[in-house]
Amino acid sequence: MFESAELEHKVDKATWSKEVPKLRADLLDAQFDLGELKKFPVIILINGVDGAGKGETVNLLNAWMDPRHIQTHAFPPPSDEERERPFMWRFWRTLPPRGNIGILFGNWYTDPILERVTKLRKIAELDGRLDEINRFEEMLAQEGALILKFWFHLSKEQQARRLKSLEKNAETRWRVTKSEWLEYKQYDRFRLVSEHVLRQTSTGHAPWIVVAGADERYRSLTVAKTLHGAIRKRIAIETERGWRPRNTAAPLTPAIDNRDIINSLDMSLKIGKKRFESDLEKYQGRLALLTRRPEFKQRSLIVVFEGNDAAGKGGSIRRVTGPLDARHFQVTPIAAPTEEERAQPYMWRFWRHIPRNGRVAIFDRSWYGRVLVERVEGFCQESDWMRAYAEINDFEDQLVRFGAVVVKFWLAITPEEQLRRFKEREKTRFKRFKITDDDWRNRKKWDDYERAICDMIDRSSTETAPWTLVQANDKYYARIKVLKTLCDSLDAALKG
Amino acid sequence: MFESAELEHKVDKATWSKEVPKLRADLLDAQFDLGELKKFPVIILINGVDGAGKGETVNLLNAWMDPRHIQTHAFPPPSDEERERPFMWRFWRTLPPRGNIGILFGNWYTDPILERVTKLRKIAELDGRLDEINRFEEMLAQEGALILKFWFHLSKEQQARRLKSLEKNAETRWRVTKSEWLEYKQYDRFRLVSEHVLRQTSTGHAPWIVVAGADERYRSLTVAKTLHGAIRKRIAIETERGWRPRNTAAPLTPAIDNRDIINSLDMSLKIGKKRFESDLEKYQGRLALLTRRPEFKQRSLIVVFEGNDAAGKGGSIRRVTGPLDARHFQVTPIAAPTEEERAQPYMWRFWRHIPRNGRVAIFDRSWYGRVLVERVEGFCQESDWMRAYAEINDFEDQLVRFGAVVVKFWLAITPEEQLRRFKEREKTRFKRFKITDDDWRNRKKWDDYERAICDMIDRSSTETAPWTLVQANDKYYARIKVLKTLCDSLDAALKG
Repeated sequence: MFESAELEHKVDKATWSKEVPKLRADLLDAQFDLGELKKFPVIILINGVDGAGKGETVNLLNAWMDPRHIQTHAFPPPSDEERERPFMWRFWRTLPPRGNIGILFGNWYTDPILERVTKLRKIAELDGRLDEINRFEEMLAQEGALILKFWFHLSKEQQARRLKSLEKNAETRWRVTKSEWLEYKQYDRFRLVSEHVLRQTSTGHAPWIVVAGADERYRSLTVAKTLHGAIRKRIAIETERGWRPRNTAAPLTPAIDNRDIINSLDMSLKIGKKRFESDLEKYQGRLALLTRRPEFKQRSLIVVFEGNDAAGKGGSIRRVTGPLDARHFQVTPIAAPTEEERAQPYMWRFWRHIPRNGRVAIFDRSWYGRVLVERVEGFCQESDWMRAYAEINDFEDQLVRFGAVVVKFWLAITPEEQLRRFKEREKTRFKRFKITDDDWRNRKKWDDYERAICDMIDRSSTETAPWTLVQANDKYYARIKVLKTLCDSLDAALKG
Repeated sequence: MFESAELEHKVDKATWSKEVPKLRADLLDAQFDLGELKKFPVIILINGVDGAGKGETVNLLNAWMDPRHIQTHAFPPPSDEERERPFMWRFWRTLPPRGNIGILFGNWYTDPILERVTKLRKIAELDGRLDEINRFEEMLAQEGALILKFWFHLSKEQQARRLKSLEKNAETRWRVTKSEWLEYKQYDRFRLVSEHVLRQTSTGHAPWIVVAGADERYRSLTVAKTLHGAIRKRIAIETERGWRPRNTAAPLTPAIDNRDIINSLDMSLKIGKKRFESDLEKYQGRLALLTRRPEFKQRSLIVVFEGNDAAGKGGSIRRVTGPLDARHFQVTPIAAPTEEERAQPYMWRFWRHIPRNGRVAIFDRSWYGRVLVERVEGFCQESDWMRAYAEINDFEDQLVRFGAVVVKFWLAITPEEQLRRFKEREKTRFKRFKITDDDWRNRKKWDDYERAICDMIDRSSTETAPWTLVQANDKYYARIKVLKTLCDSLDAALKG
């Protein structure tokens, strides 16, 4: 990977002076068009060898372009709000919105590389991280992000030369301490690990660009020209024919005998009022104790409620929040995304609501909207909801590995029961239960929804975050099943 | 304040059973209408004596209403991200958007009261805090928020009775530790301080509601009925005649001899190119060093750029960011507010961008838009921009007291120079410099803007955050004046 970058590349002063004014103007123009178009964000990753000009280049880009539409982020040790969420949370919160440029100086590559250089992690662990990173970047690319990954390189000899020359000069001598030479001793190992990382993560949508870092003029022109070319190329695609993610997957086929997990549910399950009341008290009491256990302070609970319209999500949620301390839970109803959310990748608006440790986050509808309503109503393209299964699994996997307990409920009712509830609601005095045209329309697509639901459950019920199907024709039965499942999951997790 | 609440109020079981079902339904309906209307947020403050049912009431409200549209916040010790911003930042970030209910359990009253009870602060300091709180709440009220401040009270005798009864019961004995009795010893002092606080902050728009806390049924009904009544009353006002803040202030009058601070500026000031280049190097170097001083790690720098169209804000900003480390500054251009920002008080979107310590935040246009473009173009009512002066002063005062260095520039050019620049820009190849119809329209209102600018400077140039008027007909002169002022302000602050 580093062969070309270890040649002694140079740009002379005359070329520099000739090229820079035009390049700066071109960059500014491209940035302006990017901001006007507002179709995609530019994500610039800055990594590489110390002393190869990373910081200088970041400052240069800020100086050459309009700093008002660039967000530069470095990642010092995480804050406590960041430490109490999965590793990727701090990066999600710094993603630039469409039309903007985000420069991430230090990023999701920094820790994996350093942890391997210092042998904190095994190679297999590193490769696991790199797989995740690849999937994350693929998601960004599919969402439309233009990703530029710059690796600033110095050969071992160049690094030695650099350190010696800094030491010779009285004014720069302070920059070379023992730790610089210690790092230098690690050069070969760092190079080996880096090369491995670069190879594993140089993908078609986000290849690494290795920049020879020794000559300031050379590296500055390389980065600036690459950036300019990339933005221009992408703007051209956007304006000429519209950028579209590829979609080559085979279409999903439902079971040919029409037997599926939804129509195989025993919808006659029910319990009586007395049993309900005693079970309610029992499980609410258990839930109250479980969420107050000291071990829970280091964990979190994320509960997803999905279900047919009128299946009783709201009622179930209230039975769950009842025994909880209001200071420690947050219910997030998922409706249409806001303007700020629409300028970000799909999953961004859910990452916003990831709870800190010791907290309960309840989602009334969720990230599964992508593979349910958005799929059925055609609000997104097939390629978008097809990739959503993998993105969702990655997301939940990160939550679970961080220590969150993820519990997902599908509340199922039969079409007949739904009709009964719709009619009942039309008669009720509570406006909050009014039936909208949407509800009647969705009903007509019952079979499409059922197909989407079955695909969702097949493709996103994982060992660590399984779906629980709740037969909800009987509200008592449903609420108790929800509460009992929650208690059992939490209990198992806290014991584990 | 506590006289009525110390009577032995009680609600019997029969009344409770009769009233609760209807009250719950009414509350849910009111909450639903609130959410549909989306015109105002409800902010509920929960304070008072320990053991008077604060937590229980918060949980009850969450159980009786739809928890999906309630955000409950407690305020444990601040996170490091919160500690590096002014005291009020953590409350700003939890304000509910219009249509929602926010319950703040522990809030801006908690610290001031406790700090006075424990004698950490003098009474004069407490009163200063209370003044600030009153202005903050008045702002919230003027922005349309419905504020309900509940104080849960127990008489000294009731408190003693409560502790003894808890001690008697084996199951609750653990709840009474030494610290509960120690607190009890402080009862009189706590009562005294609280009464003072409640009197000082019971205002027309946000009066305290003292709730007798000893009887659970009594306090629950009191809070729920008060809340229901308040939401209903406000919805009625909104839907019947639209809610409007009062506006009784005398109109601002310009100087009758037409001499003002803008037309008194010496607009002929200029410097030559050579002087510019040497000064630029000098002050950029100084700024680079100042922002890298160890003392700056505990401070922050907030720079506001306002000015006539085409006055050269962008160019000046780039001369300021040039010597800065891109990892430590953020330029925020202020354009039209987003949907999420429009659902919050005006100042909310600026609080979002308050920097952590060691950082530089540069605003290209700012919170002053309210008293400039919004005033002149009639985007807000007179009462809104009239109160903005005080709100802005409070905001900047909080920043400065926290340790931020606030520097504000008004870049002034003459109408003739603006015309020259507009024409020049129309010829240029850079699209980013295109002149819009807005620019030409604003020009026609030159005199109105000049009046607004002069009022702004008179009313918001404070000792701690003064305005610097920059004669910007000559770009060289302007940029150097900006840089020099920044350096001097920062230098003085870091020395202080």
